Amino acid sequence: MSSESEIPPPSSTATPDESGEKVSKKAAKKEAAKLEKLRRRQELEEAAKKTSSLSLEDDETWKNYGDVTLNELQSTADLEAGKWIQAVEGKKWTDVCDLVESMADSEVLIRGRVHTNRPVSSKLGFVILRESGFTVQCVANQSEENKVSSNMIKFLKQLSRESFVDVIGIVTVPKEPLTGTSQQVEIQVRKVYCVNKALPILPLSVEDAARSEVDIEKSLQAGKPAVRVNQDTRLNNRVLDIRTPANQSIFRIQCQVENAFREFLLSKGFVGIHTPKLMAGSSEGGSAVFRLDYKGQPACLAQSPQLHKQMAICGDLRRVFEVGPVFRAEDSFTHRHLCEFVGLDVEMEIRKHYSEIMDLVDELFVFIFTSLNEKCKKELEAVGKQYPFEPLKFLPKTLRLTFAEGVQMLKEAGVEVDPLGDLNTESERKLGQLVLEKYNTEFYILHRYPSAVRPFYTMPCADDARYSNSFDVFIRGEEIISGAQRVHIPEVLEKRAGECGIDVKTISTYIDSFRYGAPPHGGLGVGLERVVMLFCALNNIRKTSLFPRDPQRLAP
Amino acid sequence: MSSESEIPPPSSTATPDESGEKVSKKAAKKEAAKLEKLRRRQELEEAAKKTSSLSLEDDETWKNYGDVTLNELQSTADLEAGKWIQAVEGKKWTDVCDLVESMADSEVLIRGRVHTNRPVSSKLGFVILRESGFTVQCVANQSEENKVSSNMIKFLKQLSRESFVDVIGIVTVPKEPLTGTSQQVEIQVRKVYCVNKALPILPLSVEDAARSEVDIEKSLQAGKPAVRVNQDTRLNNRVLDIRTPANQSIFRIQCQVENAFREFLLSKGFVGIHTPKLMAGSSEGGSAVFRLDYKGQPACLAQSPQLHKQMAICGDLRRVFEVGPVFRAEDSFTHRHLCEFVGLDVEMEIRKHYSEIMDLVDELFVFIFTSLNEKCKKELEAVGKQYPFEPLKFLPKTLRLTFAEGVQMLKEAGVEVDPLGDLNTESERKLGQLVLEKYNTEFYILHRYPSAVRPFYTMPCADDARYSNSFDVFIRGEEIISGAQRVHIPEVLEKRAGECGIDVKTISTYIDSFRYGAPPHGGLGVGLERVVMLFCALNNIRKTSLFPRDPQRLAP
Repeated sequence: MSSESEIPPPSSTATPDESGEKVSKKAAKKEAAKLEKLRRRQELEEAAKKTSSLSLEDDETWKNYGDVTLNELQSTADLEAGKWIQAVEGKKWTDVCDLVESMADSEVLIRGRVHTNRPVSSKLGFVILRESGFTVQCVANQSEENKVSSNMIKFLKQLSRESFVDVIGIVTVPKEPLTGTSQQVEIQVRKVYCVNKALPILPLSVEDAARSEVDIEKSLQAGKPAVRVNQDTRLNNRVLDIRTPANQSIFRIQCQVENAFREFLLSKGFVGIHTPKLMAGSSEGGSAVFRLDYKGQPACLAQSPQLHKQMAICGDLRRVFEVGPVFRAEDSFTHRHLCEFVGLDVEMEIRKHYSEIMDLVDELFVFIFTSLNEKCKKELEAVGKQYPFEPLKFLPKTLRLTFAEGVQMLKEAGVEVDPLGDLNTESERKLGQLVLEKYNTEFYILHRYPSAVRPFYTMPCADDARYSNSFDVFIRGEEIISGAQRVHIPEVLEKRAGECGIDVKTISTYIDSFRYGAPPHGGLGVGLERVVMLFCALNNIRKTSLFPRDPQRLAP
Repeated sequence: MSSESEIPPPSSTATPDESGEKVSKKAAKKEAAKLEKLRRRQELEEAAKKTSSLSLEDDETWKNYGDVTLNELQSTADLEAGKWIQAVEGKKWTDVCDLVESMADSEVLIRGRVHTNRPVSSKLGFVILRESGFTVQCVANQSEENKVSSNMIKFLKQLSRESFVDVIGIVTVPKEPLTGTSQQVEIQVRKVYCVNKALPILPLSVEDAARSEVDIEKSLQAGKPAVRVNQDTRLNNRVLDIRTPANQSIFRIQCQVENAFREFLLSKGFVGIHTPKLMAGSSEGGSAVFRLDYKGQPACLAQSPQLHKQMAICGDLRRVFEVGPVFRAEDSFTHRHLCEFVGLDVEMEIRKHYSEIMDLVDELFVFIFTSLNEKCKKELEAVGKQYPFEPLKFLPKTLRLTFAEGVQMLKEAGVEVDPLGDLNTESERKLGQLVLEKYNTEFYILHRYPSAVRPFYTMPCADDARYSNSFDVFIRGEEIISGAQRVHIPEVLEKRAGECGIDVKTISTYIDSFRYGAPPHGGLGVGLERVVMLFCALNNIRKTSLFPRDPQRLAP
């Protein structure tokens, strides 16, 4: 039976010329010409290399180095073993990050990419290998005793950057601390095999991509050349870009945010659910949704799991969360908007008061932040090395202000805002600054938002319907979480929808869900990429999305 | 600033008439007429009830029962407290599932839905409350001493099924074991408040929906009426349907499958990633993908994270997994196909041999199955009560057979299959039966599949290119997991694509990803809904999808 779970990658998806930014045909042509030029240069280099290639067979130590054959990589335990298979037989690979001083004098087998390859002399070769952002220096010193031949050093030197290499060698501890590598040991090479070759010329160098702005400035001031890899080049060549230590760490931090989110909610009796992303209808109108044809029916992609997570509550799941893609077709050209991002959503029954949701937000995010600081020390350090930032200031018990209090603080600071309107980005930042000065926290909740700026399904306050049982949460002056108690009474929901100018008939199924008995409930939504961006004080959400999608980018 | 994370539900999504199955306009009209009739009946009932409504104010115990007001549910701590607020003040709710005999004589506050409401006499009322599928009997016995008035009993009796009710009462242990409820205690009602009313007539009864086929047959044989709720009625009214104990359990089991999947992989150094679901291009052709317009560019929904998870490996993340939606526009009208399902995907570097992936599959799924048996005892029991099944038979070390061995077993049993073709559903089932008889397991791996039936990016075997380093995994005779070593050498990938009749130019970006150094790697994909379906031996995948999407269903 044909495998359902795996299918060939969509063909045109993989064509940058078809899929890349539509900005202009001219730009696309230019890019194609550039690639063509690169390809030709590479062919020339390859040809040049072939003429100077080594006659490996003349060397009696020929078994200690060379290219791993395709046959060997095809899992050929039963076939006649090649020299690589023989060399690694019975050995286990040590991860580069695990190479420490206590291993001195022992033999290890490691696999890594060629990070840099410095030619020194015909008798000495230095290669820095990198694995998951961790680096170690490998030294090949010509020696009859150690069976390290000059041919082996030649072989080492012709290894192109980013190629995968297996090295068998002896761990040594250098006298001086190493500044160019993450690991404080060296490997004295005894055997070296190339597992997979990278093209000799790459669209970007991982070393360049890993450089901090400070280092670039320093180099430039010292009159040295320093390549600044711009964001589009990075994103166009994301497979190379995500190899930098900072990026390796960003996606491990992202994973830990999700782990902590799940761990905390599961411990509180929440159930993880998956709601459909394909929805009937041609959307709520406007440019906000992606439309498509579903077997002849108009359909769209879910802009949030709002409807279905509320239905799960009506279906007695009581406390649910979802981690899944969220689609927004908005033309937002900002540092903080994407057309597809990962939503972290929560919906829960309320017993008495909407503060129960804020209690959850408080505990949940303090838990997430604390777990990041504890479990991602190395990763946060690696991010900070390229993009320096101060650790997030947050309180053990999260500060709560009402919207009116926020407006008052702004007023006292000379900023007038509409007490029944929304805050703009500027006022949000200003308020963040005032809160930081007064309360020493960069994480706080602002609640009792004006009803006028919240969706129709938000529960109004009992004492003043101009305000609502809703909240936003801010990190470093930017809104990151929205939440509220929902209207669970169909008659009130109909009334509210009407007041907001929505045709009640068009949302009848949604409203009907509440006619079969619905508990008081509420919830919240937050973007995974934003949590990582703001926790690490990064300046662009594209840095925290593995393969970002924005109004101009649909590839790779 | 407007909240990005929450948006109003798409309007037409919520309209069943627009969004429902397209089967025929006639059927839709019929459905609409049915709903209209139901609505009218309900209005009549409501009106009838009003005329016979209680004059609560005459009763001196009026504070002990009644409807909770909207104001009270709007989080009005600061307002004049209503009788419900006063009654629950300082009290904590006990979950129905936590009500046990050791609580006898203590007072509890519980919230639940009215599951059944049996009128007995004017002095006695019985209501069974249900919370998350757990049920408890509440008894109201007229008593001056306990301040239980006849009006309160009247109030209790008029509560419609599925309404949310708060009960304050005393726990007692009945002399005879209770067969009609999950909890073995009763609650002697002292106070009762209706938190939210359900319509008196519902599209389906949760009690009917929860009945097993065996019970229905028994009733019918005894000449009693027994409603059989068919699948479409269930799915059309999913909010009611998922309230049954079996469904409550199915989605908790589903959550635990995901938890165990993540827990195991995280413990092995895997990183959880999220790849984009929006892809450039108009697809690999055919009806297999959903197409859409992305800001003027042709785009499609990802049929699997195949391409991007391999790119994450090329980007040095080394071992990755993803849990996310997968979209298939195929017209598969079977018990096991959906147009949108949750994919559990894994991709990892290989050191030497593709058996490393099979080792992972083995350990991972034995871990998942064991954790389900340990952590979901109650849930598995609840599913089995409605849909009886035998526990899955699996070995501590998973059986591995080669495809050729499988073909041989079938041949010996008189079933001839093409040794270089694929198995059809029937041969798969037959082989499952033979394996069960010979090896006493319903979970096994079949590997070295013929290359002809695998995608072009599958690594061929070194010793015989007609076979490949790939595998399928079976549960109870049905394929559930597909996996393989991938071709990581661009030249070989180009050759394989050509042999499979694919235009290499159209997949150039995909192939280029491997030119910048790529490790040997492989992975697997599995559908979350299928794991739950086959572990519990359910007969339809729609039972394990919260809001299923198939060629005929895009709602609710």
